[in-house]
Amino acid sequence: MRTSIATVSLSGSLTEKLTAASRAGFDGVEIFENDLLASPLTPEEIRARCADLGLTIDLYQPMRDVEGLPAEEFARAVRRARHKFELTRRLGADTVLVCSSVSPLAVDDDDLVAGQLARLAGAAREHGVRLAYEALAWGRHVSTWDHAWRVVRNADHPALGTCLDSFHILSRARGPEDLEGIEDIPGDKIFFLQLADAPLLAMDVLQWSRHYRCFPGQGGFDLAGLLRRVLRAGYTGPLSLEVFNDVFRQSEAGPTAVDARRSLLTLQESVGLAAPPAPAPPTGVAFTELVTTDAAPVAAVLGALGFTRTARHRGKPVDLWECGEARILVNTGPAGRREGTRLAAVGLESPDPSGAARRAEALLAPVLPRRRAPGDAPLEAVAAPDGTELFLCATGRPGLPDWRADFEAAQPPTGTEPRAGTEPGAGAVRRVDHLSLTQPWHQFDEAALFHRAVLGLRPQESVDVADPYGLLRSRAVSTDDGAVRIVLTVGAAPVDDTAHTQHIALAVDDVVAAARALRAAGGTLLPIPANYHDDLAARFEFADGELEAYRELGILYDRDAHGEFRHCYTRTVGRVFFELVQRDGGHRGYGAANAPVRLAAQHAARGLTGG
Amino acid sequence: MRTSIATVSLSGSLTEKLTAASRAGFDGVEIFENDLLASPLTPEEIRARCADLGLTIDLYQPMRDVEGLPAEEFARAVRRARHKFELTRRLGADTVLVCSSVSPLAVDDDDLVAGQLARLAGAAREHGVRLAYEALAWGRHVSTWDHAWRVVRNADHPALGTCLDSFHILSRARGPEDLEGIEDIPGDKIFFLQLADAPLLAMDVLQWSRHYRCFPGQGGFDLAGLLRRVLRAGYTGPLSLEVFNDVFRQSEAGPTAVDARRSLLTLQESVGLAAPPAPAPPTGVAFTELVTTDAAPVAAVLGALGFTRTARHRGKPVDLWECGEARILVNTGPAGRREGTRLAAVGLESPDPSGAARRAEALLAPVLPRRRAPGDAPLEAVAAPDGTELFLCATGRPGLPDWRADFEAAQPPTGTEPRAGTEPGAGAVRRVDHLSLTQPWHQFDEAALFHRAVLGLRPQESVDVADPYGLLRSRAVSTDDGAVRIVLTVGAAPVDDTAHTQHIALAVDDVVAAARALRAAGGTLLPIPANYHDDLAARFEFADGELEAYRELGILYDRDAHGEFRHCYTRTVGRVFFELVQRDGGHRGYGAANAPVRLAAQHAARGLTGG
Repeated sequence: MRTSIATVSLSGSLTEKLTAASRAGFDGVEIFENDLLASPLTPEEIRARCADLGLTIDLYQPMRDVEGLPAEEFARAVRRARHKFELTRRLGADTVLVCSSVSPLAVDDDDLVAGQLARLAGAAREHGVRLAYEALAWGRHVSTWDHAWRVVRNADHPALGTCLDSFHILSRARGPEDLEGIEDIPGDKIFFLQLADAPLLAMDVLQWSRHYRCFPGQGGFDLAGLLRRVLRAGYTGPLSLEVFNDVFRQSEAGPTAVDARRSLLTLQESVGLAAPPAPAPPTGVAFTELVTTDAAPVAAVLGALGFTRTARHRGKPVDLWECGEARILVNTGPAGRREGTRLAAVGLESPDPSGAARRAEALLAPVLPRRRAPGDAPLEAVAAPDGTELFLCATGRPGLPDWRADFEAAQPPTGTEPRAGTEPGAGAVRRVDHLSLTQPWHQFDEAALFHRAVLGLRPQESVDVADPYGLLRSRAVSTDDGAVRIVLTVGAAPVDDTAHTQHIALAVDDVVAAARALRAAGGTLLPIPANYHDDLAARFEFADGELEAYRELGILYDRDAHGEFRHCYTRTVGRVFFELVQRDGGHRGYGAANAPVRLAAQHAARGLTGG
Repeated sequence: MRTSIATVSLSGSLTEKLTAASRAGFDGVEIFENDLLASPLTPEEIRARCADLGLTIDLYQPMRDVEGLPAEEFARAVRRARHKFELTRRLGADTVLVCSSVSPLAVDDDDLVAGQLARLAGAAREHGVRLAYEALAWGRHVSTWDHAWRVVRNADHPALGTCLDSFHILSRARGPEDLEGIEDIPGDKIFFLQLADAPLLAMDVLQWSRHYRCFPGQGGFDLAGLLRRVLRAGYTGPLSLEVFNDVFRQSEAGPTAVDARRSLLTLQESVGLAAPPAPAPPTGVAFTELVTTDAAPVAAVLGALGFTRTARHRGKPVDLWECGEARILVNTGPAGRREGTRLAAVGLESPDPSGAARRAEALLAPVLPRRRAPGDAPLEAVAAPDGTELFLCATGRPGLPDWRADFEAAQPPTGTEPRAGTEPGAGAVRRVDHLSLTQPWHQFDEAALFHRAVLGLRPQESVDVADPYGLLRSRAVSTDDGAVRIVLTVGAAPVDDTAHTQHIALAVDDVVAAARALRAAGGTLLPIPANYHDDLAARFEFADGELEAYRELGILYDRDAHGEFRHCYTRTVGRVFFELVQRDGGHRGYGAANAPVRLAAQHAARGLTGG
């Protein structure tokens, strides 16, 4: 089916919006009245621009407060409407959206409404256009899809149909029973379908609609269920996104349009209208890659964590460090010069790297050039919305190229010997427990959708985390078995750079042993205030000596219905720090309850070092 | 009465919060548990720090989910509570806040709740502290102030009283009838009073409370009415602010604390607890001052607007330009070098400059050093939250120093003669209609309160304005007669610098004549798209030729129940542009309906000039 997007969903001038919609691959647009009024282009020039960009104009919108009016008011409304019908014709569009009236003058009289809509449709037809009548959720008298449809049916005019809008329908629906009957509307009387999702908020529906809509799959509505009904009705028009969202208004139109079309592709897939290559969720973290200009501080922390430098890339300044199944690349190439030490790439263990890459490409993930220095193993890679490079790769699996093929075993240089005093047992790093990546503030919803749609990870609930200098939002995406867990975090506002950290959480069997070993190897743990541990003492009962060890080492503790979570932190190098995690009994959290204390401690540590 | 503020209302580390509260003049603080847990200071050190800063610790909070519990759970809760009582004692505080339970285990049994609260109070007393029990608006069984008070009365324990929280009370009150009886609570059983305001939002009360509270006078609650009742009850404890607000969490603690105490002073004044010098609202705009490094572009625009350079400051590089009663100073001194051409100061015609300055000082407005170069007239000035200097002054009024005393008449230099071809009649600038000042994004509420409390202006409703690159919020403050009108505007997010403009709207009797005169004098008007005027034609009926003139000149049109508003814009110099305004029949608006078109046109013009 054809895809379309309302210009109000994107930021910028009308020209910028049209360009972004075209580049993202939409077939058409809805032109929002304010965008037209503010544009220096004439309707004919807009039409031509769209044609050049391969876009149709599928709808002009909205027309408001034109029906259910006293005679004199209705005459004025018809006069206004004729201007808009003519404008729509000049745009080369054939459909005008009419929203149900919110005017205090509107009369609660379905026969009057039907009669006036029929007369308006007659006028529209003279200009070669047709009317799609939509119930606003806050319409004065007509506020439900079935009421709007009843009026349209009674008006019985060929140039009058209904427009279904998922927000207005689902924001009011108490359950599937309120959607029954949509599939019985004759398909050719559904003139248009507007799609928007929204988080499930208990708030005034008009404010909810105007500020908090989001793209399908980013909120809590069952859009697939609604779309199936509309398709069963026989609707053949475009699937069109109409999203009022404060964040999208401020974000660059290009990436927003790509995010929008990815959301629509994912919705189409879920109802069988599109068939990108099937998802192949990752089965583990093959590696993470840090870039830096100065490897020494990173090497010192890795050494203290028990990692050993095991190999070096044949052609690039990249070292491989390993401990258990955790592998970290340290890249001192040119990439580090831009932003200092940061986490630049993640290798995801994929059951089908090339299939996963084809899916990513089909879902508009930017495919990165394969690393093909002479002798390099071919690696599939795409860019996440935050710019992190995601490699879809295999580690030691027969029949698949191994990303380690380009590395040759290294002798650990002086000063990076495996740490002393460790029994490679209880305290040893086993694998990556999770990664935590700070997202650009306006890409929080996009990032969650990307990781779900492109990688097949499952998003969990979003939680608020109080940083001393602002509220953060955090949302984990993971595989069902927890083999891959990524925590996406975003600051409350774009200036907030206190949260631009990234961290690698390493799983250990015994965090006390691991913390002691790290200290014995010269590592430094983030100090945690004594008040925190006093509070733990009030809230939980611990075995003898347990709490004293946590106090000494700066270990934090949490518990959920499934099990326990103990964790501690290294100091921060550049934007990156490490966490040691002991996860027992199927605990599902990430220490969010302790994050405010950790964040305050990191701010305090930064204050002390001036970093 | 003593004033206090909860640490959760301010941003930063506990130390930063305490310092800010002390500097703003608060007498005490409520210590929020998370701030204590995250602090490296021991309770004794926090107590000593507060003492050094002249602050008492009035409350430790919150204790949660401790009452209405099954026996085993209650025993655990008492154990937890004893830890907190001891902590409170170590802090040197005497009151602990207990919030009504939200636990799914809580039982709906008032006798049980009262009995358990009495037992907790007995335990508290052993540690020398007392309990203030507060109904959360979303408490599981106890969610109203009268229910909480009933339980406290029945528990009848000397170490148990109630805490009244204005948010929890007023967010649920359907009218004054729900507050009746507060004045009958024995004053000595009201252990604490927490004050917060909030905008009137229809949303989930917990989200409303956690993210949208604001300081008294910044929202829609009748805090004065509530406070009067509590005072009638005989309450003598502190007036304490407890405000959860996402913006304050991110803003610097110092200015937030000042804003907080100003709000409390204003509330105290409104109930007769404080008596700062009475407000003396301004009666007009005496002058506005632009600073710039390059006077030529500003002079060109002023000349085209019909202004004449009439005088020059005796000791400083400041020119006075006049047209009708509009006076604009152009300052080419060092101040302009920082940020380019901007509006740096406003002279407000004051009936009592020194009284107005004393009020401003009493309400914590930063008083600026008087301009006292040798021979300078003494001028009272304070800084607005956005840094604009506000002079409280007089123009040609007997018995008061005239701010123009330091200026001497000037011969207009070549090139700035009065514009040619003007009949000084219908098109002439009469006075300033309004000023529009962009505010730092986190100071929107503070700015409105400042202008109301300090200057005696009346805030109007806040409106959303769609800029192509983000949503702006705009709120006017004005005198009742409209002699002074200032529009405060803020961008949707801190990175939005598209909105950092300031403008001076000049009143004319005939905007068409004024626009033609400006053009004849070589001035340039902001071009407005033809689509906008096509839409006007659809919406309104105009006299012959009227709309054509608007089209030609870029004049915008709006209408309300009172009258009409016609306006057009000059090009922008630095951050500043001018508007010509014809306001008829008592129209009360500022062209907000046309602002999206104006903003888009300004973006487009900037794109063309690369500026």
